Amino acid sequence: MTEQTRESEATDEETFGLDDQTVDQVLGAVRSGDAAALAKLIDPLHAADVADILEQIDPSTRRDFVQLWGGGIDGDILSELDEGLREEVIDALAPDELADAVRDLESDDVVDLLEDLEKPQQDAILDALDDSDRVAAERALSYPEESAGRLMQREVVMGPEHWNVGQAIDFLRNSKELPEQFYHMILVDPRMRPVGYVTLGKLLSAPRKTPLVDLIEESFRTFPATAPEEDVAYAFNQYHLISAPVTDEDDRLVGVITIDDAMNVLDEEHEEDILRLAGVGEESLSDRIWETAKSRAPWLTVNLGTAILASAVIAQFEDAIAQIVALAVLMPIIASMGGNAGTQSLTVAVRALATKDLTSRNSWRILRREALAGLINGLLFAFLMGLVGYFWYGSGALGMVLAAAMVINLVVAGIVGVGVPVVLDKIGIDPALASGTFVTTVTDVAGFLAFLGLASAFLL
Amino acid sequence: MTEQTRESEATDEETFGLDDQTVDQVLGAVRSGDAAALAKLIDPLHAADVADILEQIDPSTRRDFVQLWGGGIDGDILSELDEGLREEVIDALAPDELADAVRDLESDDVVDLLEDLEKPQQDAILDALDDSDRVAAERALSYPEESAGRLMQREVVMGPEHWNVGQAIDFLRNSKELPEQFYHMILVDPRMRPVGYVTLGKLLSAPRKTPLVDLIEESFRTFPATAPEEDVAYAFNQYHLISAPVTDEDDRLVGVITIDDAMNVLDEEHEEDILRLAGVGEESLSDRIWETAKSRAPWLTVNLGTAILASAVIAQFEDAIAQIVALAVLMPIIASMGGNAGTQSLTVAVRALATKDLTSRNSWRILRREALAGLINGLLFAFLMGLVGYFWYGSGALGMVLAAAMVINLVVAGIVGVGVPVVLDKIGIDPALASGTFVTTVTDVAGFLAFLGLASAFLL
Repeated sequence: MTEQTRESEATDEETFGLDDQTVDQVLGAVRSGDAAALAKLIDPLHAADVADILEQIDPSTRRDFVQLWGGGIDGDILSELDEGLREEVIDALAPDELADAVRDLESDDVVDLLEDLEKPQQDAILDALDDSDRVAAERALSYPEESAGRLMQREVVMGPEHWNVGQAIDFLRNSKELPEQFYHMILVDPRMRPVGYVTLGKLLSAPRKTPLVDLIEESFRTFPATAPEEDVAYAFNQYHLISAPVTDEDDRLVGVITIDDAMNVLDEEHEEDILRLAGVGEESLSDRIWETAKSRAPWLTVNLGTAILASAVIAQFEDAIAQIVALAVLMPIIASMGGNAGTQSLTVAVRALATKDLTSRNSWRILRREALAGLINGLLFAFLMGLVGYFWYGSGALGMVLAAAMVINLVVAGIVGVGVPVVLDKIGIDPALASGTFVTTVTDVAGFLAFLGLASAFLL
Repeated sequence: MTEQTRESEATDEETFGLDDQTVDQVLGAVRSGDAAALAKLIDPLHAADVADILEQIDPSTRRDFVQLWGGGIDGDILSELDEGLREEVIDALAPDELADAVRDLESDDVVDLLEDLEKPQQDAILDALDDSDRVAAERALSYPEESAGRLMQREVVMGPEHWNVGQAIDFLRNSKELPEQFYHMILVDPRMRPVGYVTLGKLLSAPRKTPLVDLIEESFRTFPATAPEEDVAYAFNQYHLISAPVTDEDDRLVGVITIDDAMNVLDEEHEEDILRLAGVGEESLSDRIWETAKSRAPWLTVNLGTAILASAVIAQFEDAIAQIVALAVLMPIIASMGGNAGTQSLTVAVRALATKDLTSRNSWRILRREALAGLINGLLFAFLMGLVGYFWYGSGALGMVLAAAMVINLVVAGIVGVGVPVVLDKIGIDPALASGTFVTTVTDVAGFLAFLGLASAFLL
């Protein structure tokens, strides 16, 4: 007991997670090939921390690690590993080590492991499972990817709706195998359709005679197994759910999703949004150089295309630039300000779409707000740019042109920053994925066009 | 019961959250001033959905809404509202309506409400609370902002470490007031220091004679009340915690944090990261035009400064541009590709820092990886740009200069994309907040310098 408390206090002292010293010792043990020392260091660590160590070390040390400690790698650690690494580690495990590793996992974790693997690895794991677990896993895999059916665990604690508290408690006390974590007893009707749930806290504190239906929680919500996991995570977050039953096409109870799974999905969705907004595909820190380059190239290619488009706009004004070189010096400022303002509006809009705060009802109002906010900032920075143009190049007319182009481009930025993601969302494309290119292309083109066009008209 | 099931099925049919029809009906009732119809529409909705409606409608409709339905606004709805709106709504409520609203909240929700309010509004709410609740709230507010102490609820279910299952169950059954949600009984030693916890599932299924200490969970972790909430959220996510005790400076139990609070913090941290990466400060969709413009201006000002810096670099090469206008046409391509590649590396690095995957141990390796991935993509796009230069302007030499500048800038982008956030993180600045400016400034300057410098050296 005290052991445990002391350990958790030590963790509290510094930041949570791994400390450098432990990792250095682990690496030392791996390098010297000392299996006993390694096991002693790893044993007290949480599976998530062991997975982090595996992710942080370089590939050759990782191979030595797995070879030295393969028997210790259990299903929990495999579950915590990055997808890319998982395959590598599973390949490095002996078949009986793999079988040992997956046998104790809850059904949702097995499915989570299985779904990202290649067929031969999937079969190796399926073969290692008991018959009933294998059938359950195969059934779960039959649901669409990233659906509630994949996310749920099949281990469910349920009782008929006519039970009272005493019957529920007796049932639980006599159950041989209860799920490791559960927070509700789900009530089902005679056709196995969930009708409500009761928290364990209520079960524990209510008199034995109380009918369970009197204790049902208002928060109760069910999800069809085909519901996208993204919607499930949204609902858990929005309605503060702890667990929720999952139903099949006949509304019968087939599983339960718990908040830790939903939190995981929420985390992944956020991660995906952030990376997609920056034009980075699915990648992880453990990727090799070549994979990293490959995952970055597609967006850079798109960007090259749009940059060439913007250059083609500039090319239309070569004569003007040849006469007034200052235009070439100043034009990137207008484009850069537009790009930044557009990215600001875009990011706010993408987030608001994800949290369902931006809807078809208020999108016009938000578009108007962004355009007007762009106008206000446009006027502010037009004034500053006008001064720059005047004092740098001593030309009031150049200052006026700079100022006008700035106003135009920041208003354009506000409009496309909201308009593009809203339209993409409407036609079913993830706005985080594709908006960035569109928005900066438009602000580049609009910026160059406005500035060089006005300059050609008024300065030549 | 069937009512409830049917309703939840209806929600499942479409996406979760609000449907347009309901919102339209609500707005109709507000416009026609029909309080009865409004109450009937709102009553079945979850507080989070009511808050969403208030956030989505325009300010004048919102005022009418609150006036018509002020008595119905309870603490749950206030808790769900955006900070900015919350003040507006609280101001619009009569003092007795406000008192009714906050009285039923759990202590963590009261604190969450209080901490963002101005002093007079804080006092109004504190006055509305019972003496004991007020003291508790004031004590929670004495903890640092965004700390575990602010996040925790003080309602704790605990028992002495020497109890057995039967004693725990009898205690729970005889408790008058248990928290609405709790998942563990926390065991404390005679000096009130938490030593472990037991899940309610174990309590329910174990024989009455079993000592509680035999059922203690391995996942047990405590947090000091002063721990930053960000670290708490990280630990909940990393170690799949459901609840965790909070301790004071003497290690005594003072409260408990539950996973829904941690999920909330995780969500907010992500939101903050995404917005900061795009140079948007704290803002919400319900902000007015003026506030929106104001929140965007600081970053745009910084960007203006850095854009002028990049322009000053271009200005050094005015002679070259005057002789070869093609340089002005092509230079934005090099800068844009560098900016994009830098943002990609940056975003991956910022996320990896947030999830503690990027540490001082592997930062050199990751820096090397990004530089080499930049080199690979640099060579790829150098080849493409060389072709563009050659076929567009018919100059092999120009193509070579473009190609060389591309390679240089993409390698620079990889290095600064990782280097800047790592250094900022080390000196204690949030890398999400400030990295973007640094990185694009460096890639702009490096891009212009490499391209125009090489052009001056080899093409004139």
